[in-house]
Amino acid sequence: MTDGSIGSKRRNRRRASQDAPAKTVGRTVDYHNLRSPFPTMDVFSPDQAASMHETALTILEDLGTRVLLPEAREIFTKAGATLRGDDTIHIGRDMVNAALSSAPKSILCKGGIPTKDFVLEQGRLVFQAGAGAPHATDLDRGRRPGSARDYIEYLQLTQHFDVFQMISPQVEPQDVATHLRHYFTTEAQLIWSNKFPFTFSRGTPQVMDCFEMIRDYRGLSDADFASAPQTYTIINTNSPRTLDIPMAQGLIDFARFGQLSIVTPFTLMGAMAPITVAGAITLSHAEALAAITLTQLVNPGAPVAYGTFTSNVDMKSGAPAFGTPAHFQASLAAGQMARLIGLPWRSAAGSASNSNDVQAANENQMGLWGCLMAGATVVIHAAGWLEGGLTVSYEKLVTDVEVLNMVAELCAGASADPADIGYATAIAEVEPQGHFFATSQTMERYATAFYDPIVHDYANFGTWTERGATDANNRATDVWKDIVARKDQPGLKSDSLGQLKDFIARRTAEGGAPPES
Amino acid sequence: MTDGSIGSKRRNRRRASQDAPAKTVGRTVDYHNLRSPFPTMDVFSPDQAASMHETALTILEDLGTRVLLPEAREIFTKAGATLRGDDTIHIGRDMVNAALSSAPKSILCKGGIPTKDFVLEQGRLVFQAGAGAPHATDLDRGRRPGSARDYIEYLQLTQHFDVFQMISPQVEPQDVATHLRHYFTTEAQLIWSNKFPFTFSRGTPQVMDCFEMIRDYRGLSDADFASAPQTYTIINTNSPRTLDIPMAQGLIDFARFGQLSIVTPFTLMGAMAPITVAGAITLSHAEALAAITLTQLVNPGAPVAYGTFTSNVDMKSGAPAFGTPAHFQASLAAGQMARLIGLPWRSAAGSASNSNDVQAANENQMGLWGCLMAGATVVIHAAGWLEGGLTVSYEKLVTDVEVLNMVAELCAGASADPADIGYATAIAEVEPQGHFFATSQTMERYATAFYDPIVHDYANFGTWTERGATDANNRATDVWKDIVARKDQPGLKSDSLGQLKDFIARRTAEGGAPPES
Repeated sequence: MTDGSIGSKRRNRRRASQDAPAKTVGRTVDYHNLRSPFPTMDVFSPDQAASMHETALTILEDLGTRVLLPEAREIFTKAGATLRGDDTIHIGRDMVNAALSSAPKSILCKGGIPTKDFVLEQGRLVFQAGAGAPHATDLDRGRRPGSARDYIEYLQLTQHFDVFQMISPQVEPQDVATHLRHYFTTEAQLIWSNKFPFTFSRGTPQVMDCFEMIRDYRGLSDADFASAPQTYTIINTNSPRTLDIPMAQGLIDFARFGQLSIVTPFTLMGAMAPITVAGAITLSHAEALAAITLTQLVNPGAPVAYGTFTSNVDMKSGAPAFGTPAHFQASLAAGQMARLIGLPWRSAAGSASNSNDVQAANENQMGLWGCLMAGATVVIHAAGWLEGGLTVSYEKLVTDVEVLNMVAELCAGASADPADIGYATAIAEVEPQGHFFATSQTMERYATAFYDPIVHDYANFGTWTERGATDANNRATDVWKDIVARKDQPGLKSDSLGQLKDFIARRTAEGGAPPES
Repeated sequence: MTDGSIGSKRRNRRRASQDAPAKTVGRTVDYHNLRSPFPTMDVFSPDQAASMHETALTILEDLGTRVLLPEAREIFTKAGATLRGDDTIHIGRDMVNAALSSAPKSILCKGGIPTKDFVLEQGRLVFQAGAGAPHATDLDRGRRPGSARDYIEYLQLTQHFDVFQMISPQVEPQDVATHLRHYFTTEAQLIWSNKFPFTFSRGTPQVMDCFEMIRDYRGLSDADFASAPQTYTIINTNSPRTLDIPMAQGLIDFARFGQLSIVTPFTLMGAMAPITVAGAITLSHAEALAAITLTQLVNPGAPVAYGTFTSNVDMKSGAPAFGTPAHFQASLAAGQMARLIGLPWRSAAGSASNSNDVQAANENQMGLWGCLMAGATVVIHAAGWLEGGLTVSYEKLVTDVEVLNMVAELCAGASADPADIGYATAIAEVEPQGHFFATSQTMERYATAFYDPIVHDYANFGTWTERGATDANNRATDVWKDIVARKDQPGLKSDSLGQLKDFIARRTAEGGAPPES
């Protein structure tokens, strides 16, 4: 089953327990539709946050942003922005405010089937696996350049776990030629997954190919396709203060066709951003506002998400660090900016570690809690990311999913009604120093009371040793191999698959589409 | 230095930078005095929480608690509680409410030197390392029964890191005879540490010996000793609804001498407590209230902390699990109870893993965030705990300290004043696509901008591989060996050391004190 082993196991246990005489009171946990139960945390005072927003508007107005794509400069200047020098665009406050008014606060994202749709808006919680890595690694095969096989296997894994609502641009299939790579990645997403797919902004020809494939293979009319986002892209600005050609083109193409751009300045404090959280997020905020404004000038109401990915460098070596206190605070600060403007928004977890060790686990979870307490709508790189994004790890994907599943369980909340407290059905039934294994309340609930882990092991030391003393990483290897071996193709519809293959064959014969605008 | 390498390194860097022309703007981070910056999270509605509290009072009134120590029963009945059967005490609401009124909301805990004092009250944050383990483990020597050597080494480690404000009853020195063990552990704490020491409640004779040693060795008069807690104990009830002899005796002895009891029912949902979070915490709350009431009957105003340690068992095997969603929610629920009664309170992190692997890291951090979002005053077992407390790991202590240090850094907050945003001193100084390594703001702040990790490694994959590809655990081995090798004895005062040795020699000759009340 592609719905995730957790949910399936739980359902099976519930079904089995129907043969038992006692009524089973089940928890219902919907990993696909999560609302954050976590209170948001501010790192700055409201006045300081307001002053950061004002400073960002001043940056856009007075310092300006380099916009390298002529078409984008034209869109800005036609709307009233000022061009100074060759390519620096100065955007007034009014234009930014108008864009923030027209950008939707709630966005329905479409999967391949209705149960894979989800909504992006503040208060929701969506996870995406580690993305954009040139390398893949696992304990069996070691670290290697990402390949088509890795791409598909990683896709099987992210499809399998319900806690990932979006497909990520996970690992770069370096063995596929760049002018044909987008055919491969889009076809793979459509065959091996039924979730919300990703499209790289690597020039209009590639983007249009991808849009066409998604529309036709998922059996959508042009109107269907435009009615709600069927795919999304990530837009990284070139910090500081530069919007390059493919990124600007992506913003324009996605806005025009009603598809989702997630705008994410990627800034490292002390390197391409100020050394302070306040400075780095102010700069990142300005850059995000410029990109959001462009989408709304192209198509008012176009779906766009705010975002940030800001951490710090190690000042001794200049190396990027993740899951640090500064990374955590940057997420909190971005959350304050996001709440000021009201848009759904993304932040990111991540790890700088070179293997899936304790450092990797601790960094990723620290980064995750920063996102959760910041109120991030989408947590990107929530699982599997090593080396600051240069590698995705199969085992780390699995061990991080354990954490995400637990967060999803927390989203379900808990109740303390009298039946839950169980004064009569549990507490009064048990004598002092007795046990609760057989109380009425326990009998009703034992089958579904607790989260059932995928890789964590509760065996005692003796049993664990007898079983081979395997650590979480080695157990994770068994988990991912089992999933990959199933070869589930939930996106497969044979009638449209033929068309898709024909399309790719034709476009390949025509020379494909190089990654250029 | 005993003040922790983090603080020392930072101070050294700051000192060094005074030779540089630029003024250094330093962060000040005080790991010893932490206030929680995290918003508290409720898992239940206020009505539900109030109903749990009421149900707990009904449990104490109608179901009663077995109290196995005659002296404790007498204290309860003299104050108006009802004895039914041989040893079941029924405590009225009024008596509990009176105890909650007299119990102090703020408690000054004394270290061996004034800078090691700290305050326990809601809003503060105190960490204690993993405690009470029969075994110790490290990568060099493997898993073994805890020994005197382990006890001292572990003490050196917890003394070293500023983020531990309290000494924990870390590992059981099984090679010291039980009738002499309390001399050894107290002497070791007084020699190898200057922090707030722990005393086991293993009968009045041992407790009195420990009080005497702490009083005399730390040079205190009886009045000094009684003026504020100089030591603390952990009181675990025997759930459900039983207060055994040593625990009741400990509550009485510590209250009488103005020393601190931390009351902690240790309950596993589905085993010795109801299977629900609501039921388990209601029972735990009742048991804690009974114990707190006893302290206040003995000595109104005696320092006592509320506490819980509630997680779930794996319903398939009955094995204890930690760092689970149910554990997290139990901490939140206990936090709601604690806020109702206003006392400082403890919760706990922990891990069920059998080695310091990714599971161990993820469980401990998940449990930690449960405590932090619950607003726990003291987080016990915050580092080093494996196998549900059967083993403490030297490496895990170090890797968990990395996480605690980062939490301590978050307690320091951040500022977004104009100088922090740095519009003129950073953002406007850098051209589009330039870098911030040399801005005025960076030059002012680079030496102290970011947390400097103790074991996390930011080297890239190539460099890391050349250096031997050591994982966090192996790096942690180097960290603890370095600390242990220093042989710092910050508690040592030669004049009183002689007296202490004489005292122990005399008491040993007299036959010591068996662990009996």
